[in-house]
Amino acid sequence: MNKKAVVLLSGGADSSTTLACAVRNGFETYALTIDYGQRHRLELELAKKQAAGFSCTRHLILEVDLRAIGKSALTDDIDVPIGRSEEDMADEIPVTYVPARNTIFLSLALGWAESIGTGHIFIGVNAVDYSGYPDCRPEYIDSFEQTARLATKMGVEGNEIRIHTPLIDKTKAEIFRLGTELGVDFSLTLSCYGPADGKPCGKCDSCILRQKGFAEAGLEDPLEYFG
Amino acid sequence: MNKKAVVLLSGGADSSTTLACAVRNGFETYALTIDYGQRHRLELELAKKQAAGFSCTRHLILEVDLRAIGKSALTDDIDVPIGRSEEDMADEIPVTYVPARNTIFLSLALGWAESIGTGHIFIGVNAVDYSGYPDCRPEYIDSFEQTARLATKMGVEGNEIRIHTPLIDKTKAEIFRLGTELGVDFSLTLSCYGPADGKPCGKCDSCILRQKGFAEAGLEDPLEYFG
Repeated sequence: MNKKAVVLLSGGADSSTTLACAVRNGFETYALTIDYGQRHRLELELAKKQAAGFSCTRHLILEVDLRAIGKSALTDDIDVPIGRSEEDMADEIPVTYVPARNTIFLSLALGWAESIGTGHIFIGVNAVDYSGYPDCRPEYIDSFEQTARLATKMGVEGNEIRIHTPLIDKTKAEIFRLGTELGVDFSLTLSCYGPADGKPCGKCDSCILRQKGFAEAGLEDPLEYFG
Repeated sequence: MNKKAVVLLSGGADSSTTLACAVRNGFETYALTIDYGQRHRLELELAKKQAAGFSCTRHLILEVDLRAIGKSALTDDIDVPIGRSEEDMADEIPVTYVPARNTIFLSLALGWAESIGTGHIFIGVNAVDYSGYPDCRPEYIDSFEQTARLATKMGVEGNEIRIHTPLIDKTKAEIFRLGTELGVDFSLTLSCYGPADGKPCGKCDSCILRQKGFAEAGLEDPLEYFG
Protein backbone atom coordinates (compact mmCIF):
# COMPACT_ATOMS: atom_id res chain seq x y z
CA MET A 1 0.00 0.00 0.00
CA ASN A 2 1.19 3.49 -0.75
CA LYS A 3 2.15 5.84 2.02
CA LYS A 4 -0.42 8.56 2.62
CA ALA A 5 0.31 12.26 2.44
CA VAL A 6 -1.73 15.38 3.12
CA VAL A 7 -1.18 17.95 0.36
CA LEU A 8 -2.11 21.60 0.92
CA LEU A 9 -3.86 22.56 -2.29
CA SER A 10 -4.92 26.14 -2.96
CA GLY A 11 -5.60 25.43 -6.59
CA GLY A 12 -2.79 27.69 -7.78
CA ALA A 13 0.13 26.72 -10.02
CA ASP A 14 2.53 26.01 -7.15
CA SER A 15 0.26 23.84 -5.03
CA SER A 16 -1.00 21.95 -8.09
CA THR A 17 2.59 21.16 -9.08
CA THR A 18 3.26 20.13 -5.47
CA LEU A 19 0.33 17.70 -5.64
CA ALA A 20 1.78 16.29 -8.85
CA CYS A 21 5.13 15.79 -7.06
CA ALA A 22 3.45 13.90 -4.21
CA VAL A 23 1.71 11.62 -6.70
CA ARG A 24 4.92 11.11 -8.69
CA ASN A 25 6.68 10.15 -5.42
CA GLY A 26 4.15 7.37 -4.91
CA PHE A 27 2.01 8.87 -2.16
CA GLU A 28 -1.70 8.25 -1.76
CA THR A 29 -2.86 11.85 -1.58
CA TYR A 30 -5.31 13.62 0.72
CA ALA A 31 -5.77 17.14 -0.59
CA LEU A 32 -6.60 19.88 1.92
CA THR A 33 -7.93 23.21 0.74
CA ILE A 34 -8.51 25.95 3.30
CA ASP A 35 -11.43 28.19 2.49
CA TYR A 36 -10.20 31.19 4.45
CA GLY A 37 -12.40 33.80 2.83
CA GLN A 38 -10.01 34.44 -0.05
CA ARG A 39 -11.19 37.06 -2.48
CA HIS A 40 -10.84 34.88 -5.54
CA ARG A 41 -13.42 32.21 -4.80
CA LEU A 42 -12.86 30.67 -8.21
CA GLU A 43 -9.68 29.03 -6.88
CA LEU A 44 -11.74 26.68 -4.72
CA GLU A 45 -13.43 25.31 -7.84
CA LEU A 46 -10.09 25.00 -9.59
CA ALA A 47 -8.69 23.14 -6.57
CA LYS A 48 -11.51 20.60 -6.90
CA LYS A 49 -10.60 20.02 -10.54
CA GLN A 50 -6.90 19.52 -9.71
CA ALA A 51 -7.75 17.08 -6.90
CA ALA A 52 -10.03 15.12 -9.23
CA GLY A 53 -7.46 15.20 -12.03
CA PHE A 54 -4.79 13.70 -9.79
CA SER A 55 -7.20 11.14 -8.28
CA CYS A 56 -6.78 12.23 -4.67
CA THR A 57 -8.26 9.72 -2.22
CA ARG A 58 -10.01 12.60 -0.52
CA HIS A 59 -10.31 16.34 -1.04
CA LEU A 60 -11.33 18.24 2.07
CA ILE A 61 -12.30 21.90 1.88
CA LEU A 62 -12.14 23.30 5.39
CA GLU A 63 -13.59 26.66 6.30
CA VAL A 64 -11.49 28.89 8.54
CA ASP A 65 -12.45 32.51 8.29
CA LEU A 66 -9.11 34.28 8.46
CA ARG A 67 -10.86 37.58 7.73
CA ALA A 68 -11.96 37.53 11.37
CA ILE A 69 -8.40 37.46 12.65
CA GLY A 70 -6.30 39.09 9.97
CA LYS A 71 -5.85 41.91 7.57
CA SER A 72 -4.44 41.21 4.15
CA ALA A 73 -4.98 42.13 0.54
CA LEU A 74 -5.79 38.46 -0.10
CA THR A 75 -8.85 38.58 2.15
CA ASP A 76 -9.79 42.25 2.51
CA ASP A 77 -10.53 45.13 0.24
CA ILE A 78 -6.96 46.35 0.16
CA ASP A 79 -5.61 47.06 -3.31
CA VAL A 80 -3.02 44.63 -4.54
CA PRO A 81 -0.01 46.32 -6.10
CA ILE A 82 0.20 46.23 -9.87
CA GLY A 83 2.94 46.78 -12.39
CA ARG A 84 5.83 46.42 -9.92
CA SER A 85 9.33 45.41 -10.90
CA GLU A 86 10.81 42.27 -9.39
CA GLU A 87 13.23 44.43 -7.40
CA ASP A 88 10.31 46.24 -5.80
CA MET A 89 8.68 42.92 -4.97
CA ALA A 90 11.81 41.60 -3.32
CA ASP A 91 12.18 44.67 -1.13
CA GLU A 92 9.51 44.03 1.42
CA ILE A 93 6.92 41.72 2.90
CA PRO A 94 3.98 42.14 0.52
CA VAL A 95 0.51 43.43 1.48
CA THR A 96 -0.77 40.05 0.35
CA TYR A 97 0.94 38.55 3.44
CA VAL A 98 -1.69 36.86 5.64
CA PRO A 99 -0.51 36.79 9.28
CA ALA A 100 0.66 33.29 10.26
CA ARG A 101 -1.07 31.76 7.25
CA ASN A 102 1.28 28.88 6.57
CA THR A 103 1.50 28.07 10.29
CA ILE A 104 -2.30 27.87 10.43
CA PHE A 105 -2.45 25.78 7.23
CA LEU A 106 0.35 23.44 8.30
CA SER A 107 -1.15 22.90 11.75
CA LEU A 108 -4.51 21.96 10.21
CA ALA A 109 -2.71 19.65 7.78
CA LEU A 110 -0.83 18.16 10.73
CA GLY A 111 -4.07 17.45 12.59
CA TRP A 112 -5.59 15.73 9.57
CA ALA A 113 -2.37 13.84 8.84
CA GLU A 114 -2.25 12.44 12.36
CA SER A 115 -5.90 11.42 12.14
CA ILE A 116 -5.39 9.44 8.94
CA GLY A 117 -2.16 7.95 10.26
CA THR A 118 0.64 9.68 8.39
CA GLY A 119 3.38 12.17 9.14
CA HIS A 120 3.82 13.28 5.51
CA ILE A 121 2.66 16.76 4.51
CA PHE A 122 3.30 18.57 1.22
CA ILE A 123 3.23 22.35 0.86
CA GLY A 124 4.08 24.38 -2.23
CA VAL A 125 6.13 27.14 -0.62
CA ASN A 126 8.82 28.74 -2.68
CA ALA A 127 11.67 30.86 -1.39
CA VAL A 128 13.23 31.93 -4.67
CA ASP A 129 10.92 34.16 -6.66
CA TYR A 130 8.76 36.48 -4.65
CA SER A 131 10.39 35.53 -1.40
CA GLY A 132 8.99 38.26 0.80
CA TYR A 133 6.91 35.86 2.91
CA PRO A 134 8.71 34.82 6.11
CA ASP A 135 6.75 31.57 6.26
CA CYS A 136 8.08 30.36 2.91
CA ARG A 137 11.71 30.06 4.05
CA PRO A 138 13.47 26.74 4.69
CA GLU A 139 14.40 27.73 8.25
CA TYR A 140 10.73 28.29 9.01
CA ILE A 141 9.73 24.93 7.53
CA ASP A 142 12.45 23.12 9.49
CA SER A 143 11.28 24.78 12.68
CA PHE A 144 7.65 23.85 12.08
CA GLU A 145 8.67 20.26 11.42
CA GLN A 146 10.51 20.17 14.75
CA THR A 147 7.50 21.68 16.54
CA ALA A 148 5.22 19.11 14.90
CA ARG A 149 7.36 16.29 16.30
CA LEU A 150 6.89 17.67 19.81
CA ALA A 151 3.21 18.51 19.32
CA THR A 152 1.77 15.18 18.33
CA LYS A 153 1.21 11.69 19.61
CA MET A 154 2.77 10.30 16.43
CA GLY A 155 5.81 12.51 16.91
CA VAL A 156 6.26 11.58 20.56
CA GLU A 157 5.97 7.92 19.60
CA GLY A 158 8.84 8.32 17.16
CA ASN A 159 6.99 8.16 13.85
CA GLU A 160 8.40 10.06 10.92
CA ILE A 161 7.10 13.59 10.41
CA ARG A 162 8.14 15.34 7.23
CA ILE A 163 7.06 18.62 5.70
CA HIS A 164 7.83 18.14 2.01
CA THR A 165 8.56 21.32 0.05
CA PRO A 166 9.45 20.13 -3.45
CA LEU A 167 9.36 23.66 -4.89
CA ILE A 168 11.23 25.54 -2.20
CA ASP A 169 14.41 26.13 -4.19
CA LYS A 170 12.90 26.31 -7.67
CA THR A 171 12.39 29.35 -9.87
CA LYS A 172 8.97 29.94 -11.40
CA ALA A 173 10.33 28.76 -14.76
CA GLU A 174 11.51 25.51 -13.17
CA ILE A 175 8.13 25.04 -11.50
CA PHE A 176 6.24 25.42 -14.78
CA ARG A 177 8.65 23.02 -16.49
CA LEU A 178 8.32 20.45 -13.70
CA GLY A 179 4.54 20.78 -13.54
CA THR A 180 4.22 20.40 -17.29
CA GLU A 181 6.39 17.25 -17.17
CA LEU A 182 4.18 15.83 -14.40
CA GLY A 183 0.93 16.53 -16.21
CA VAL A 184 -0.37 19.60 -14.40
CA ASP A 185 -3.06 21.36 -16.42
CA PHE A 186 -1.98 24.98 -16.00
CA SER A 187 -5.05 26.20 -17.85
CA LEU A 188 -6.82 25.40 -14.56
CA THR A 189 -4.46 27.50 -12.44
CA LEU A 190 -5.09 31.18 -12.21
CA SER A 191 -2.29 32.70 -10.07
CA CYS A 192 -3.84 36.19 -10.29
CA TYR A 193 -4.60 38.18 -7.12
CA GLY A 194 -7.56 39.98 -8.64
CA PRO A 195 -9.13 38.15 -11.57
CA ALA A 196 -12.03 39.78 -13.43
CA ASP A 197 -14.68 37.72 -15.20
CA GLY A 198 -12.64 34.62 -14.43
CA LYS A 199 -9.68 36.01 -16.35
CA PRO A 200 -6.33 36.96 -14.73
CA CYS A 201 -5.47 40.67 -14.73
CA GLY A 202 -1.96 40.28 -16.15
CA LYS A 203 -0.70 43.13 -13.96
CA CYS A 204 -0.43 42.01 -10.34
CA ASP A 205 2.82 40.62 -8.89
CA SER A 206 1.54 37.09 -9.25
CA CYS A 207 0.55 37.48 -12.93
CA ILE A 208 3.85 39.17 -13.73
CA LEU A 209 5.86 36.34 -12.17
CA ARG A 210 3.73 33.74 -13.93
CA GLN A 211 4.17 35.32 -17.35
CA LYS A 212 7.89 35.71 -16.82
CA GLY A 213 8.12 32.10 -15.60
CA PHE A 214 6.39 30.69 -18.64
CA ALA A 215 8.55 32.82 -20.92
CA GLU A 216 11.78 31.70 -19.25
CA ALA A 217 10.65 28.08 -19.34
CA GLY A 218 10.07 28.39 -23.06
CA LEU A 219 6.47 27.26 -22.56
CA GLU A 220 3.24 28.82 -23.65
CA ASP A 221 0.94 30.09 -20.90
CA PRO A 222 -2.46 28.53 -21.63
CA LEU A 223 -4.30 31.42 -19.95
CA GLU A 224 -5.96 34.30 -21.67
CA TYR A 225 -5.35 37.54 -19.77
CA PHE A 226 -7.93 40.20 -19.13
CA GLY A 227 -5.84 43.32 -19.76
CA MET B 1 -1.24 52.19 27.23
CA ASN B 2 -1.29 48.57 28.29
CA LYS B 3 0.35 45.96 26.16
CA LYS B 4 -2.09 43.78 24.28
CA ALA B 5 -2.30 40.02 24.58
CA VAL B 6 -4.34 37.33 22.88
CA VAL B 7 -5.65 34.84 25.45
CA LEU B 8 -6.92 31.44 24.35
CA LEU B 9 -10.12 30.98 26.33
CA SER B 10 -12.06 27.73 26.25
CA GLY B 11 -14.20 28.73 29.19
CA GLY B 12 -12.77 26.02 31.44
CA ALA B 13 -11.08 26.50 34.80
CA ASP B 14 -7.53 26.59 33.43
CA SER B 15 -8.10 29.05 30.61
CA SER B 16 -10.21 31.31 32.83
CA THR B 17 -7.41 31.42 35.39
CA THR B 18 -4.97 32.13 32.57
CA LEU B 19 -7.10 35.08 31.48
CA ALA B 20 -7.06 36.34 35.07
CA CYS B 21 -3.23 36.09 35.05
CA ALA B 22 -2.99 38.13 31.85
CA VAL B 23 -5.20 40.82 33.37
CA ARG B 24 -3.24 40.79 36.62
CA ASN B 25 -0.02 41.21 34.61
CA GLY B 26 -1.42 44.41 33.12
CA PHE B 27 -2.27 43.23 29.62
CA GLU B 28 -5.17 44.54 27.58
CA THR B 29 -6.80 41.24 26.71
CA TYR B 30 -8.20 39.88 23.45
CA ALA B 31 -9.91 36.58 24.20
CA LEU B 32 -9.99 33.94 21.47
CA THR B 33 -12.35 30.99 21.72
CA ILE B 34 -12.21 28.31 19.07
CA ASP B 35 -15.55 26.73 18.31
CA TYR B 36 -14.17 23.45 17.02
CA GLY B 37 -17.33 21.40 17.30
CA GLN B 38 -16.73 20.44 20.93
CA ARG B 39 -19.41 18.23 22.39
CA HIS B 40 -20.10 20.45 25.36
CA ARG B 41 -21.44 23.53 23.63
CA LEU B 42 -22.24 25.11 26.97
CA GLU B 43 -18.56 26.02 27.37
CA LEU B 44 -18.88 28.62 24.60
CA GLU B 45 -21.51 30.44 26.66
CA LEU B 46 -19.38 30.18 29.76
CA ALA B 47 -16.40 31.58 27.85
CA LYS B 48 -18.48 34.63 26.95
CA LYS B 49 -19.26 35.19 30.61
CA GLN B 50 -15.60 34.93 31.63
CA ALA B 51 -14.54 37.34 28.87
CA ALA B 52 -17.19 39.83 29.97
CA GLY B 53 -16.30 39.37 33.64
CA PHE B 54 -12.66 40.20 32.97
CA SER B 55 -13.52 43.11 30.65
CA CYS B 56 -11.69 41.78 27.60
CA THR B 57 -11.35 44.41 24.88
CA ARG B 58 -12.64 41.84 22.41
CA HIS B 59 -13.87 38.27 22.55
CA LEU B 60 -13.68 36.48 19.23
CA ILE B 61 -15.32 33.09 18.75
CA LEU B 62 -13.83 31.53 15.66
CA GLU B 63 -15.33 28.46 14.01
CA VAL B 64 -12.91 25.76 12.90
CA ASP B 65 -14.56 22.41 12.49
CA LEU B 66 -11.94 20.02 13.81
CA ARG B 67 -14.45 17.17 13.48
CA ALA B 68 -13.69 17.25 9.76
CA ILE B 69 -10.01 16.56 10.30
CA GLY B 70 -9.76 14.68 13.56
CA LYS B 71 -11.04 11.93 15.71
CA SER B 72 -11.28 12.51 19.43
CA ALA B 73 -13.61 11.88 22.34
CA LEU B 74 -13.89 15.66 22.70
CA THR B 75 -15.51 16.04 19.29
CA ASP B 76 -16.84 12.60 18.33
CA ASP B 77 -19.11 10.02 19.84
CA ILE B 78 -16.29 8.16 21.51
CA ASP B 79 -16.89 7.33 25.17
CA VAL B 80 -14.76 9.28 27.59
CA PRO B 81 -13.20 7.11 30.28
CA ILE B 82 -14.76 7.33 33.72
CA GLY B 83 -13.64 6.37 37.19
CA ARG B 84 -9.95 6.04 36.34
CA SER B 85 -7.16 6.39 38.86
CA GLU B 86 -4.57 9.10 38.36
CA GLU B 87 -1.98 6.41 37.61
CA ASP B 88 -4.13 5.13 34.75
CA MET B 89 -4.50 8.66 33.44
CA ALA B 90 -0.77 9.26 33.49
CA ASP B 91 -0.07 6.08 31.57
CA GLU B 92 -1.07 7.10 28.10
CA ILE B 93 -2.17 9.85 25.79
CA PRO B 94 -5.89 10.13 26.51
CA VAL B 95 -8.69 9.52 23.97
CA THR B 96 -9.64 13.14 24.55
CA TYR B 97 -6.46 14.13 22.70
CA VAL B 98 -7.37 16.20 19.62
CA PRO B 99 -4.63 15.86 16.98
CA ALA B 100 -2.49 19.00 16.81
CA ARG B 101 -5.09 20.99 18.74
CA ASN B 102 -2.79 23.37 20.57
CA THR B 103 -0.73 23.94 17.43
CA ILE B 104 -3.90 24.87 15.56
CA PHE B 105 -5.11 27.09 18.41
CA LEU B 106 -1.73 28.79 18.88
CA SER B 107 -1.33 29.44 15.17
CA LEU B 108 -4.75 31.11 15.01
CA ALA B 109 -3.87 33.12 18.11
CA LEU B 110 -0.58 34.07 16.44
CA GLY B 111 -2.38 35.31 13.34
CA TRP B 112 -4.74 37.43 15.39
CA ALA B 113 -1.93 38.69 17.62
CA GLU B 114 0.07 39.86 14.63
CA SER B 115 -2.99 41.60 13.19
CA ILE B 116 -3.63 43.58 16.36
CA GLY B 117 0.06 44.36 16.76
CA THR B 118 1.28 42.21 19.62
CA GLY B 119 3.50 39.19 20.11
CA HIS B 120 1.99 38.18 23.46
CA ILE B 121 -0.18 35.07 23.63
CA PHE B 122 -1.50 33.33 26.74
CA ILE B 123 -2.49 29.65 26.84
CA GLY B 124 -3.60 27.64 29.87
CA VAL B 125 -1.60 24.48 29.27
CA ASN B 126 -0.56 22.47 32.26
CA ALA B 127 2.09 19.79 32.33
CA VAL B 128 1.72 18.58 35.91
CA ASP B 129 -1.64 16.94 36.49
CA TYR B 130 -3.03 15.01 33.57
CA SER B 131 0.09 15.44 31.53
CA GLY B 132 -0.67 12.94 28.79
CA TYR B 133 -1.02 15.60 26.09
CA PRO B 134 2.23 16.12 24.15
CA ASP B 135 1.25 19.69 23.26
CA CYS B 136 1.08 20.78 26.90
CA ARG B 137 4.80 20.30 27.59
CA PRO B 138 7.29 23.17 28.00
CA GLU B 139 9.54 21.83 25.23
CA TYR B 140 6.61 21.97 22.83
CA ILE B 141 5.71 25.54 23.84
CA ASP B 142 9.35 26.66 23.46
CA SER B 143 9.49 25.12 20.01
CA PHE B 144 6.24 26.77 18.90
CA GLU B 145 7.54 30.13 20.14
CA GLN B 146 10.68 29.68 18.06
CA THR B 147 8.63 28.72 14.99
CA ALA B 148 6.40 31.76 15.52
CA ARG B 149 9.46 34.03 15.41
CA LEU B 150 10.41 32.61 12.02
CA ALA B 151 6.83 32.52 10.71
CA THR B 152 5.78 36.12 11.07
CA LYS B 153 6.58 39.58 9.86
CA MET B 154 6.73 40.80 13.47
CA GLY B 155 9.15 38.01 14.34
CA VAL B 156 11.41 38.66 11.36
CA GLU B 157 11.43 42.35 12.26
CA GLY B 158 12.71 41.51 15.73
CA ASN B 159 9.60 42.19 17.80
CA GLU B 160 9.09 40.18 20.97
CA ILE B 161 7.03 37.01 20.64
CA ARG B 162 6.13 35.26 23.85
CA ILE B 163 3.82 32.33 24.52
CA HIS B 164 2.85 32.82 28.18
CA THR B 165 1.93 29.66 30.08
CA PRO B 166 1.31 30.83 33.65
CA LEU B 167 -0.12 27.45 34.71
CA ILE B 168 2.38 25.12 33.10
CA ASP B 169 4.10 24.00 36.31
CA LYS B 170 1.14 24.28 38.67
CA THR B 171 -0.93 21.52 40.22
CA LYS B 172 -4.71 21.68 39.96
CA ALA B 173 -4.86 22.72 43.63
CA GLU B 174 -2.47 25.61 42.93
CA ILE B 175 -4.52 26.65 39.91
CA PHE B 176 -7.75 26.79 41.93
CA ARG B 177 -5.99 28.75 44.66
CA LEU B 178 -4.48 31.20 42.18
CA GLY B 179 -7.73 31.61 40.27
CA THR B 180 -9.67 32.23 43.46
CA GLU B 181 -7.12 34.87 44.50
CA LEU B 182 -7.47 36.57 41.13
CA GLY B 183 -11.25 36.61 41.17
CA VAL B 184 -12.14 33.77 38.80
CA ASP B 185 -15.75 32.66 39.24
CA PHE B 186 -15.34 28.88 39.20
CA SER B 187 -19.09 28.38 39.35
CA LEU B 188 -18.92 29.36 35.67
CA THR B 189 -16.31 26.74 34.78
CA LEU B 190 -17.46 23.24 34.07
CA SER B 191 -14.35 21.13 33.40
CA CYS B 192 -16.49 18.01 32.74
CA TYR B 193 -16.05 16.03 29.48
CA GLY B 194 -19.68 14.94 29.34
CA PRO B 195 -22.03 17.18 31.31
CA ALA B 196 -25.71 16.24 31.55
CA ASP B 197 -28.43 18.85 31.97
CA GLY B 198 -25.69 21.47 32.38
CA LYS B 199 -24.28 19.61 35.38
CA PRO B 200 -20.84 17.94 35.47
CA CYS B 201 -20.83 14.14 35.69
CA GLY B 202 -18.39 13.89 38.59
CA LYS B 203 -16.85 10.74 37.08
CA CYS B 204 -14.72 11.63 34.05
CA ASP B 205 -10.96 12.29 34.35
CA SER B 206 -11.54 16.01 34.26
CA CYS B 207 -14.17 16.01 37.03
CA ILE B 208 -12.03 13.73 39.20
CA LEU B 209 -9.01 16.02 38.88
CA ARG B 210 -11.14 19.07 39.58
CA GLN B 211 -12.66 17.63 42.74
CA LYS B 212 -9.28 16.48 43.98
CA GLY B 213 -7.81 19.91 43.18
CA PHE B 214 -10.43 21.79 45.14
CA ALA B 215 -10.06 19.38 48.07
CA GLU B 216 -6.26 19.76 48.12
CA ALA B 217 -6.57 23.54 47.87
CA GLY B 218 -8.87 23.51 50.87
CA LEU B 219 -11.51 25.31 48.82
CA GLU B 220 -15.12 24.44 48.20
CA ASP B 221 -16.06 23.52 44.64
CA PRO B 222 -19.03 25.76 43.79
CA LEU B 223 -20.41 23.21 41.32
CA GLU B 224 -23.22 20.77 41.92
CA TYR B 225 -22.44 17.42 40.34
CA PHE B 226 -24.90 15.28 38.45
CA GLY B 227 -24.00 11.84 39.81
